Amino acid sequence: TEDTQLGVFAEFDPKIPGPYNEVPFLFLGNIHPQLQLDVLDKMTKKPIVAADTMNFWITGTPDLLRQVIARVDLMLVNDAEAQMISGKTNLLDAADAIRAMGPKVVVIKKGSHGAMLFFEGGIFVVPAIPLRTAKDPTGAGDTFAGGMMGYLARQGNIEAETLKQAAVAGTVMASFTVEDFSLNRLGSVGKGEIAERMEQLRALSAFTPIQL
Amino acid sequence: TEDTQLGVFAEFDPKIPGPYNEVPFLFLGNIHPQLQLDVLDKMTKKPIVAADTMNFWITGTPDLLRQVIARVDLMLVNDAEAQMISGKTNLLDAADAIRAMGPKVVVIKKGSHGAMLFFEGGIFVVPAIPLRTAKDPTGAGDTFAGGMMGYLARQGNIEAETLKQAAVAGTVMASFTVEDFSLNRLGSVGKGEIAERMEQLRALSAFTPIQL
Repeated sequence: TEDTQLGVFAEFDPKIPGPYNEVPFLFLGNIHPQLQLDVLDKMTKKPIVAADTMNFWITGTPDLLRQVIARVDLMLVNDAEAQMISGKTNLLDAADAIRAMGPKVVVIKKGSHGAMLFFEGGIFVVPAIPLRTAKDPTGAGDTFAGGMMGYLARQGNIEAETLKQAAVAGTVMASFTVEDFSLNRLGSVGKGEIAERMEQLRALSAFTPIQL
Repeated sequence: TEDTQLGVFAEFDPKIPGPYNEVPFLFLGNIHPQLQLDVLDKMTKKPIVAADTMNFWITGTPDLLRQVIARVDLMLVNDAEAQMISGKTNLLDAADAIRAMGPKVVVIKKGSHGAMLFFEGGIFVVPAIPLRTAKDPTGAGDTFAGGMMGYLARQGNIEAETLKQAAVAGTVMASFTVEDFSLNRLGSVGKGEIAERMEQLRALSAFTPIQL
């Protein structure tokens, strides 16, 4: 990210009315870490928490960001952000370092190259779905996070296989977002199209293991 | 590639003694397209041919390169090269355009982001194996091609499932090359380590499909 203008978010002070203060799965979108902490404090039951951030907060408010990361179950960042937060170039080392700060799970988003999931005892790599039309990547990361959290919330756990499937769900949903501006494409997506892309993604990376 | 110095390859004139002039699988490494054509002409039986190239030849000798591409079954290039050859930004369009020039199969190599395989009726995406130690990427593309061609030659066909497995074999072999300089790591690799990485790569991208 080259430039950040906070706009209305500069003075945003979110209220969390019930029953939203007791949801079991919470996603803290990329915003001032102090607001992320405030939202966390307003939750009456301890939810499973995912969070996103960006270079602006990593360099601007590192101490507050550390406090957020310490209270998060899943940290979602892109590759450059993971390297900045951890000070490590190698993505395995970066994910390890971030997991050592608190999160059980680190998701490293790589745009058109897909995403990597680091969790207890494993790594999962999901490719992005190759698209004929890719108009605007804006919102792809948030859609990925939304699809992922939606799936986790529906399953009610963050076990290894659920996490992998959630990353797949996030990838599929994000593939629609980039095909048009804003929510134009995502708003019209039906269950059939989602199922089709799920199958497309499965076929993309499936192969018969080689017997040596 | 920022700069190319041909060195001894500027005046290289390869001889192909028997029985190498009748091998069933031939890989034309990245070199002057005229030499690639000469080697093709010296083959006494028509082999299955794969070829690599680079920006230096794409811009320097485009017509000769076109003649090579027209006679190749598998074209292996990186993403930037695929875009230069085809004039297309979108990788699906780029692969289509290159396949329209002759090759049945196009492999687009993306370094640490893995590789994409485009063939009749399908796309296959294989992630690179995340490595703790990555010292030098030099030779990774050639090792990938070598592993791929070795597997295809052993199987004796270029059918869809064989192609996928060959890309997996290439990925596994390339993962060793980058761990040290030159052939230092690759030279000491045993069958057990190869089997281990095959399993690692399978586990990396395997997931239980989501039922909607």
